[in-house]
Amino acid sequence: MAASTRSLAPVTRRKRAVTAPSGIVTLLTDFGTRDPFVGVMKGVVLSVERRLEVVDLTHEIEPQAIAPAAFWLEQSYGWFPAGTVHVVVVDPGVGGERAALVVRARGHYFVGPDNGCFERVLRGAAGAEVRRIDVVRLGLAVPSRTFHGRDVFAPVAARLAARRLEFAAVGPEHAPLATALVPDAVRDRDGTSGVVVVVDRFGNLITNVPAAAARLGTRVTLGDEALELVGAYADVAVGTAAAVVGSCGTVELFVRDGSASARFGAKRGASVRVSA
Amino acid sequence: MAASTRSLAPVTRRKRAVTAPSGIVTLLTDFGTRDPFVGVMKGVVLSVERRLEVVDLTHEIEPQAIAPAAFWLEQSYGWFPAGTVHVVVVDPGVGGERAALVVRARGHYFVGPDNGCFERVLRGAAGAEVRRIDVVRLGLAVPSRTFHGRDVFAPVAARLAARRLEFAAVGPEHAPLATALVPDAVRDRDGTSGVVVVVDRFGNLITNVPAAAARLGTRVTLGDEALELVGAYADVAVGTAAAVVGSCGTVELFVRDGSASARFGAKRGASVRVSA
Amino acid sequence: MAASTRSLAPVTRRKRAVTAPSGIVTLLTDFGTRDPFVGVMKGVVLSVERRLEVVDLTHEIEPQAIAPAAFWLEQSYGWFPAGTVHVVVVDPGVGGERAALVVRARGHYFVGPDNGCFERVLRGAAGAEVRRIDVVRLGLAVPSRTFHGRDVFAPVAARLAARRLEFAAVGPEHAPLATALVPDAVRDRDGTSGVVVVVDRFGNLITNVPAAAARLGTRVTLGDEALELVGAYADVAVGTAAAVVGSCGTVELFVRDGSASARFGAKRGASVRVSA
Repeated sequence: MAASTRSLAPVTRRKRAVTAPSGIVTLLTDFGTRDPFVGVMKGVVLSVERRLEVVDLTHEIEPQAIAPAAFWLEQSYGWFPAGTVHVVVVDPGVGGERAALVVRARGHYFVGPDNGCFERVLRGAAGAEVRRIDVVRLGLAVPSRTFHGRDVFAPVAARLAARRLEFAAVGPEHAPLATALVPDAVRDRDGTSGVVVVVDRFGNLITNVPAAAARLGTRVTLGDEALELVGAYADVAVGTAAAVVGSCGTVELFVRDGSASARFGAKRGASVRVSA
Repeated sequence: MAASTRSLAPVTRRKRAVTAPSGIVTLLTDFGTRDPFVGVMKGVVLSVERRLEVVDLTHEIEPQAIAPAAFWLEQSYGWFPAGTVHVVVVDPGVGGERAALVVRARGHYFVGPDNGCFERVLRGAAGAEVRRIDVVRLGLAVPSRTFHGRDVFAPVAARLAARRLEFAAVGPEHAPLATALVPDAVRDRDGTSGVVVVVDRFGNLITNVPAAAARLGTRVTLGDEALELVGAYADVAVGTAAAVVGSCGTVELFVRDGSASARFGAKRGASVRVSA
Repeated sequence: MAASTRSLAPVTRRKRAVTAPSGIVTLLTDFGTRDPFVGVMKGVVLSVERRLEVVDLTHEIEPQAIAPAAFWLEQSYGWFPAGTVHVVVVDPGVGGERAALVVRARGHYFVGPDNGCFERVLRGAAGAEVRRIDVVRLGLAVPSRTFHGRDVFAPVAARLAARRLEFAAVGPEHAPLATALVPDAVRDRDGTSGVVVVVDRFGNLITNVPAAAARLGTRVTLGDEALELVGAYADVAVGTAAAVVGSCGTVELFVRDGSASARFGAKRGASVRVSA
């Protein structure tokens, strides 16, 4: 299974050279879909260039929760063609002093605030470059102080995706904030210690423990619970709790056709131990 | 009204011949939109062919609930151009032995697991064909055991929609599982017995009793409640409960500007009786 | 700040001449995304013309709540290219006597029921024109009496956006219902009285008091609470309540990284007073 899960890394991730823009803009925000904020951002993108394609990653990031945004961005971007522009707007510091960034890394572009949301795509990315968006130099209208998704990130992303803005023209080089919002799992002689990084819609507890630290039959411990690592959800009976290497390539705790989050009362940040 | 509701069947449904792919892929899943699973599937589709159009039907099917997925698919597909590829991922058996299918029926393609989600589009479809997806033959990467939406269904759907895969090349012919997830209403001398098939966002109770079994003024019974069948929501006063032939072409129970589901405590599967 | 917020009005709003259709259709409904109603409308649009682009504004308008739909439409349309066709389906009167309209105003088209949802885009729009959709003349199939979004508004919007229907051919001229669903704020010598128009996803209380009535340091009163108007969310400490001129160009009450709606128990319609 480790072999197959390692092969999950999409082919495009292996293309490290930055190629031509794909004309695709993805959006990852905490805006929800109750209000038309996301639709307005799409209007701004299409006003720059009608032929761009805008794809929602999710808008249901918990308000102001940067760590899950960083995790899901890392999991998602590589499934898009090289040259895609990924916009992240989880931005509790909007209107303050935080910088607005464009990152060029791993063959993709990333646009959003300097608050740690890009830490996972930057970690270990050879040749990654970061520039601070210079609003004046780009001739953008004076932005509002509450909605830079609309006033800064969407127009910059659209111009990049439409090849109307060169990366080097975005603004000066910038050293992004050092953060460690999504910790790495720690391996020792007896196993690996990690945490629950996100709880998904099904109540699955997705951890930061990589596939390489797990094998079939391994014991996975969460509080007083000890689960067996199996090959697939369908390998256990309905209602049974177990662990699996999930589609993120990390250990995931689940209840077959149920919710592990509800069963164990576990949330983001809960400690998990995987035996060697 | 029966006449007008019969005419609801969209024009494209009458085109039975399979025509050229429309370049459209629809998605019907239980993934929700909290996590970026759907966005990742779109990335996979656009990585195959940038010019494809991906349309969400819904991602809010109750987790692992195949019957509502089958019902909504039947209701929705015909409103798209012939040749559209419809992907269904409500897949509690993912990673187990269930087959992955492509169905060609009624001028459209359908891609998803062999678990009953296609029973409604297959029922009575003359000349329908079903093939099992042969992952090895198609040269797909070894799929994960938890996310075939991304690893199997999205790439196969994209290749079909982009005309890069012939239906006959999908894999061997396959006899799908016999299921009866969405029962037919039963007509007798005095009327028709049916069930609530889905509860919609407004709390309307949508049944499987066809328009042909109903006429204006008919009595519709749900438990101890007897409602009158009227022509439109607006035909009764705000707060009044009644029945109508809804946009699905079946009898639907509603409360004007309110929720019939909340009023009657009725759920999917509740029995309904329509007098002759 | 008043200067910068006044500049929020998007450039396209200043183009008053109706130009060529942009090929974009936006959707603003109370359909939610649990059921495939929105997806079906997109299928209808793409069946008219495959190259059209459909953008969701929101589908989470509270069922049958016309005032927030009118407010969000006014806030959103101008961020799209001139010639965009905006469909609004918040339609408690569907199937009754209410007219179905197309409005041409401010360089955009608007399609939906005659129930007040267009009052904000019509107010003060020089040269605005309104026509009633003549279903028979347009050769539309007899519509259902419950889902005009699919049977009337989507096909008419698609034909307009695809240039297959001239505005003058929609049907006869029509005088829309006079409504005042979203009241104007009232200015007096000591300040301005307004109301909360919508509560957004973050729990921010968005009012109808325009930026011009506010300046930094102004006191904003909601019930017994008196808040200071600051420049940005990030100008106060986490957990502190204050007011700001928000991205809608009106006064907005917020709690930094929290919910003003939860803190104050305030809802749509609550009275707000801004000191001069």
